[in-house]
Amino acid sequence: MKKMVEWTGKAALLLIMDGLGELPSTSSALYKAKKPHIDALARDGIQGVMHVLGRGLVPGSDTAHLTLFGYNIKTEYPDRGPLEALGVGIKLKKGDVAFRTNFATLKAGKIVDRRAGRIPTSEARKLAKLLQGITIDGVEFIFHSTVEHRGALVMRGKGLSPDISDSDPHDVGVPPKPFKGNKRMVKLLNAYIKEVNKRLRGKRANTILIRGAGMYKPIQSFEEKHRLSAEAVAGGALYKGVARYLGMETPDIKGATGDAHSDYSAKARAAIKAAKAGKKFVFLHVKATDSFSHDGNCKGKRSIVERVDREIVKAVKPYFDPIVITGDHATPCSLGRHTGHGVPFLAYGSQVGRDNQKKFAELYSHNGGLGHFYGKEVMPQIINWMGLAHKIGE
Amino acid sequence: MKKMVEWTGKAALLLIMDGLGELPSTSSALYKAKKPHIDALARDGIQGVMHVLGRGLVPGSDTAHLTLFGYNIKTEYPDRGPLEALGVGIKLKKGDVAFRTNFATLKAGKIVDRRAGRIPTSEARKLAKLLQGITIDGVEFIFHSTVEHRGALVMRGKGLSPDISDSDPHDVGVPPKPFKGNKRMVKLLNAYIKEVNKRLRGKRANTILIRGAGMYKPIQSFEEKHRLSAEAVAGGALYKGVARYLGMETPDIKGATGDAHSDYSAKARAAIKAAKAGKKFVFLHVKATDSFSHDGNCKGKRSIVERVDREIVKAVKPYFDPIVITGDHATPCSLGRHTGHGVPFLAYGSQVGRDNQKKFAELYSHNGGLGHFYGKEVMPQIINWMGLAHKIGE
Repeated sequence: MKKMVEWTGKAALLLIMDGLGELPSTSSALYKAKKPHIDALARDGIQGVMHVLGRGLVPGSDTAHLTLFGYNIKTEYPDRGPLEALGVGIKLKKGDVAFRTNFATLKAGKIVDRRAGRIPTSEARKLAKLLQGITIDGVEFIFHSTVEHRGALVMRGKGLSPDISDSDPHDVGVPPKPFKGNKRMVKLLNAYIKEVNKRLRGKRANTILIRGAGMYKPIQSFEEKHRLSAEAVAGGALYKGVARYLGMETPDIKGATGDAHSDYSAKARAAIKAAKAGKKFVFLHVKATDSFSHDGNCKGKRSIVERVDREIVKAVKPYFDPIVITGDHATPCSLGRHTGHGVPFLAYGSQVGRDNQKKFAELYSHNGGLGHFYGKEVMPQIINWMGLAHKIGE
Repeated sequence: MKKMVEWTGKAALLLIMDGLGELPSTSSALYKAKKPHIDALARDGIQGVMHVLGRGLVPGSDTAHLTLFGYNIKTEYPDRGPLEALGVGIKLKKGDVAFRTNFATLKAGKIVDRRAGRIPTSEARKLAKLLQGITIDGVEFIFHSTVEHRGALVMRGKGLSPDISDSDPHDVGVPPKPFKGNKRMVKLLNAYIKEVNKRLRGKRANTILIRGAGMYKPIQSFEEKHRLSAEAVAGGALYKGVARYLGMETPDIKGATGDAHSDYSAKARAAIKAAKAGKKFVFLHVKATDSFSHDGNCKGKRSIVERVDREIVKAVKPYFDPIVITGDHATPCSLGRHTGHGVPFLAYGSQVGRDNQKKFAELYSHNGGLGHFYGKEVMPQIINWMGLAHKIGE
């Protein structure tokens, strides 16, 4: 009697701890963290090392996530602006050009504070109201403030171009960088900034700096590409933006803040809810591992791993098959920045198999059963572990 | 407190022991060698297996080095002639066609000795003087003798072609092979060889055999490609030639001979000098491991590894971060020729991380934390370990 098992019957979970990877050693956050639930998956599952964009290459979080989801960043990466704009809830149209923005403080033409004293979110919202309804030469400027000094700007109109440089000099004591690139864009943005400065005159945040220009065009959705209905459980705007760019559902989750105070139990519940509602693929993103790494806070990073273990992994385990846990890139807390080191990768499920490693950490994943592979190879493996891969040939 | 560590502050060292790789076993040169300094790097560093051109593919030293340095041999390999010519100090111009040459002995139209009795270098130099100032149909023939019977020939003029076969039949008792290929080249070279034979009449070296035609064109420099100022510490002409082709500095090092009598301490001092002078990347090449392998002399190969350990690795360790030790291909001394086996690879440094291997050898590198990778992935990894990789995306 031939018995044919296809779909595992459960949704796949891709749990990304941002910047999880460290220099392989016994002092890494993963190695040191007490994480009995994750280590139980390691004992019954299989590990490997993932090179997201390629050996030694350093991904941003945006290019990393697109690659993990099976997209080609050479042709399908819209730059950061559109992803942030989508993340804050702006509905983009084909041909829109989007930017990230900072409220900043200018004095005698020079930037004295790139973040305008990290003004409170509520104050920034009031300032944002002053910037509504600006249209220049038929081009609409849609401005949206998000958290503290941060925001997104979208230009909407005919014949725009993403060929335009940043005004943010990433420095103080200097003037904003003059715009360079497409002539019409330079003219439009110079006029826009003039109007913004006029409207903000006298405020401590008396200008905006912009960067990361990108033009939006719709691409093939995740569901079309992989034949998997998908939901993203994320707090950070960028991650929601990437998910929306790919057409995933992105519910707003109360308490999911994209920082170390995020309510991980709420995220676990949201993931379970999505699985119960029939979604085949759930992407759950945790940001604070990366944030603590950027601050050089290894202990903080470890504590987040331990919280993820207790508050997420324990709760979601019964509802998903397979479960994949990894990072989008390495951010070694000893270095405080993204690096191109391999990222530990763990898979567990009824169609996954196992290796002989006992714990999940860099030093174990190096000898894991999956060996070393690239970020673009993640989705085909997940779909195979779900039992949903289509045969090529006969 | 934000802690951000970028460049390690030291130069990277790429130490290539030519033909280092062996069939993995407990009798390999690396496994048997007493090399406490290299093994200390292995204990605190990380190993892997490098497939230079691809699994099972057999590299020449020229294509191997170009690949390790991040070049595409399909589009950027000029063939051996130009690399040898650059190596012996000829300054090539775009459009030059270069060859390797041998002085040989002809008798009644047949080759009786392909190396003219391995004539002494000094005697060859005198013969080379007889071959100066030959110009045929506006094409200049620049001839340079090097060590013993070996030399380089450069044709300089308009409209030359690298489409020309070797005259060296790699055999005795037969005539030189007639030139085939581009018609003008055949005519020019036939006239040139006729003139050479006339000028050498009566000498024991009474002709030259030529091979490895290649046309020189400048390519992107190593410094432009990788943003790393670079110096090559090498004795062998080919390795200097490759380095010059890529625009690396190639100082002449007294005592660096490219053979087993090479002064390794002088090479170590030259490497340290380059690092102290601010070079970001130093390539140090050791030839004798390969030469002994070709001769089937496993003991000799082992003794070179031990000398490299004592005379180079011990001395250079404080001055470089990261330090990478590997080969350009395998030349198992049991086989006496280049093969396509994986090459053991060791990296050590403050931004490298570690694995659990205790010694550097094929049997350890197979279980190393870097897994298996390709030669073209070496430079991105080194740049990442230097802390100098640029982020792709945000």
